Amino acid sequence: MSNGDIFVGEVIGTAILILFGAGVCAAVTLRHSKARASGWVVIAFGWGFGVLAGAYTAAPLSGGQLNPAVTIGIAVDTGKWGKVWVYLLGQIVGAMLGAVLAYLVYLAQFQANIRKEGGGDGTADEPVATLGIFSTIPEIRNPVANLITEIIATTALVLPILAFGLTKGLGQSGTTVLIVSLLVVGIGLSLGGPAGYAINPARDLGPRIVHTLLPIPNKGTSDWGYAWIPVAGPLLGGVLAGVIYNAAF
Amino acid sequence: MSNGDIFVGEVIGTAILILFGAGVCAAVTLRHSKARASGWVVIAFGWGFGVLAGAYTAAPLSGGQLNPAVTIGIAVDTGKWGKVWVYLLGQIVGAMLGAVLAYLVYLAQFQANIRKEGGGDGTADEPVATLGIFSTIPEIRNPVANLITEIIATTALVLPILAFGLTKGLGQSGTTVLIVSLLVVGIGLSLGGPAGYAINPARDLGPRIVHTLLPIPNKGTSDWGYAWIPVAGPLLGGVLAGVIYNAAF
Amino acid sequence: MSNGDIFVGEVIGTAILILFGAGVCAAVTLRHSKARASGWVVIAFGWGFGVLAGAYTAAPLSGGQLNPAVTIGIAVDTGKWGKVWVYLLGQIVGAMLGAVLAYLVYLAQFQANIRKEGGGDGTADEPVATLGIFSTIPEIRNPVANLITEIIATTALVLPILAFGLTKGLGQSGTTVLIVSLLVVGIGLSLGGPAGYAINPARDLGPRIVHTLLPIPNKGTSDWGYAWIPVAGPLLGGVLAGVIYNAAF
Amino acid sequence: MSNGDIFVGEVIGTAILILFGAGVCAAVTLRHSKARASGWVVIAFGWGFGVLAGAYTAAPLSGGQLNPAVTIGIAVDTGKWGKVWVYLLGQIVGAMLGAVLAYLVYLAQFQANIRKEGGGDGTADEPVATLGIFSTIPEIRNPVANLITEIIATTALVLPILAFGLTKGLGQSGTTVLIVSLLVVGIGLSLGGPAGYAINPARDLGPRIVHTLLPIPNKGTSDWGYAWIPVAGPLLGGVLAGVIYNAAF
Repeated sequence: MSNGDIFVGEVIGTAILILFGAGVCAAVTLRHSKARASGWVVIAFGWGFGVLAGAYTAAPLSGGQLNPAVTIGIAVDTGKWGKVWVYLLGQIVGAMLGAVLAYLVYLAQFQANIRKEGGGDGTADEPVATLGIFSTIPEIRNPVANLITEIIATTALVLPILAFGLTKGLGQSGTTVLIVSLLVVGIGLSLGGPAGYAINPARDLGPRIVHTLLPIPNKGTSDWGYAWIPVAGPLLGGVLAGVIYNAAF
Repeated sequence: MSNGDIFVGEVIGTAILILFGAGVCAAVTLRHSKARASGWVVIAFGWGFGVLAGAYTAAPLSGGQLNPAVTIGIAVDTGKWGKVWVYLLGQIVGAMLGAVLAYLVYLAQFQANIRKEGGGDGTADEPVATLGIFSTIPEIRNPVANLITEIIATTALVLPILAFGLTKGLGQSGTTVLIVSLLVVGIGLSLGGPAGYAINPARDLGPRIVHTLLPIPNKGTSDWGYAWIPVAGPLLGGVLAGVIYNAAF
Repeated sequence: MSNGDIFVGEVIGTAILILFGAGVCAAVTLRHSKARASGWVVIAFGWGFGVLAGAYTAAPLSGGQLNPAVTIGIAVDTGKWGKVWVYLLGQIVGAMLGAVLAYLVYLAQFQANIRKEGGGDGTADEPVATLGIFSTIPEIRNPVANLITEIIATTALVLPILAFGLTKGLGQSGTTVLIVSLLVVGIGLSLGGPAGYAINPARDLGPRIVHTLLPIPNKGTSDWGYAWIPVAGPLLGGVLAGVIYNAAF
Repeated sequence: MSNGDIFVGEVIGTAILILFGAGVCAAVTLRHSKARASGWVVIAFGWGFGVLAGAYTAAPLSGGQLNPAVTIGIAVDTGKWGKVWVYLLGQIVGAMLGAVLAYLVYLAQFQANIRKEGGGDGTADEPVATLGIFSTIPEIRNPVANLITEIIATTALVLPILAFGLTKGLGQSGTTVLIVSLLVVGIGLSLGGPAGYAINPARDLGPRIVHTLLPIPNKGTSDWGYAWIPVAGPLLGGVLAGVIYNAAF
């Protein structure tokens, strides 16, 4: 695969992933959305099928890795680091593009995210917080625990992919794409409770940059103090998965 | 494939798609339905498995495109426009047939959709609105935003199909049909919040015609003022997907 | 396939189907069940994965039809009626066996389905109705509408199976079994609202016989006045699917 | 396969299974989890996709059995008992490891599981019970009924696997892994209501040992009086499945 194909494939694939992922978070969060408050099962399947859509699309061009933790896990396993920077660059650009697309899909909802006065009874409906649509927020802010959560959850993503998936040709088999996407659904359902499962540095960092830059009404903080954890944790998890794979398989 | 096979396949397949899709909207909307108010996850999976059922059935005859946006995206990609009209004609006829079938499945529920007096306390239970069972309704009426939503959501459907799906023989592989149907579930979960994800001009226009014609009790408006958006948006999205595919792949 | 293999396969496969299906209805209905009131999505996936489990198991022996409507649809299509009686006999015996197994799984819950006195405030918790665990009950009792619902829903099951599934070897391909099971999930989500989607005469009749015979506390009526509809409707739907298939494909 | 590969594969695979399974129970149970109270559908899919992740990973090393009931069902079927002890040892060690990993993922949530005083109104928020995150608890404590439930549910797991799955090479086919995982989702939805579906002795015993040993705040009882049922029931179910398979297939 040429560097151009890899870059374009990862940009398009990761953009679709984040379009679906940030989209489903907008869908359950924002007022005037038909899916508002439809629950965790919607979040988990929305992100998982974002992987399906993105990897399925990117597969013919780049193999559809869409995640620096996956790319680095593969590099640790294979020892081939030459094209890693192309993948990572495409993933971060794609994640930013996807966040902008999700913002555009929910444009009217974001613009309506303002304080609404109630009737004559003095009540008001406050704007909802928007960062959770773009990036992860821990339920309990505890750097050590949050980092452990991200490391384990990412290892549980990358190790199965190494053991069965990408090394046998993710891009060649619809079944493998499907199984990896359901694996991501499972990680969301099971391991997303504490901190929202970044498990992908590009997935968290790209949209956080976009959240900082976009003129979203009442957007609140972009919480850059937390931003290193969903980058460092998944990278460590990807390395750990590569090490375990090389040792055990 | 002969014109006759294409037409019959698209009629049957699109009818099944709309039977399931309008059916699941009736299921969660109408009183006296066991699935009433069962939530967005039911809507999204109901429509997705409608694609599964319809495309699976139509595949041996027509390939199971069932959507003018898909048909036009393929035509933009391949440059073959000769049979496009047969697909489109079959899709719109099939969508109308499917809407009638869904109406028949929920016949008793539609007939019971009348004002119900409460007990002696003066309350009453009003009929539910029926258009949302047949066609899409935006949560916030904003033509520019609604059009952007439909364009992006449709591109996110057609581009993956072009990249991996139909061009490798949708009709030949159960796995591809399955993945496309889960892709539609994902679009529903993630991108359906603002306007209900037509992403298919036939899916919206055919049932809207049927809603206008059928003598449904308390059916309310057919809202023809909005009808051009879920036709134009998906068509533009299909063209955009074809253009991106030709440029990037 | 020998008559013995067909019979045993259909008994085991249909028993597993009904074990899962009646089981999931018990799970959401009975008190002291962890899944109580968990909603329509649980019902639909429970029945669908019952098809998966049953057909997957029966496939090597009988092909895993598990449904007289499917068997008769295939016979209308192929003209081969010689072994139809073996399939039907196995299916009805298997459905009865499965209903007994589901009863045994929820034995303690059925035995606890008694009137419970409240505290000192005079309230009481009445037993829940049990027929809905075994057989279908329409939300609105209207024989013509109920029959139409069952005919259309069953046609929407059998036509896709004929077009793509059984004729290409349901028993040979895990993917086909999976797709048919998700098709059944879709029918439940979309078309189960009015009357609970029998779409299978054995699925309704076998458990209704068991409900009549078993000494279940507070079991209520077995409603034999309705029993002909979920038998006749699916059979007509199966024939209709065979006729459409022969005409169109 | 060498004993070493089998042991390592079963340890890793079962650890991933329990990480997801105990994880999803923590996700819906513990305070400060984004998935809290998200319902039975989340539990069932979380456990099922844990099977997907674990079996997918272990497949190249050990075939990915992950369950003593499956291992013993296969041994009854094939008559080969020589390596059973390696599988079982790996499964119980893996289940303990997985429970520790799930504890670490939800570390902050477990540590916050303390009595919280309300405002000035005298109310307080009591800690939640933690055993249900690790091991199964029956809704109605009735040894005979609980044992019957576990036997039937496990037979419904192992018999399909014998009939179609493992004997044709679970480790070789992504589709088979996927179908078995959805089978486990179905068992959860349909048969998990009475007692929480251990259907796997290692899944219940390993985490129960960990629950006893770990210094979890307010962890409550480990309920060893019940522990024999989710071991004996699944083992009997596995044997029964092997016997039925040998007799019928």
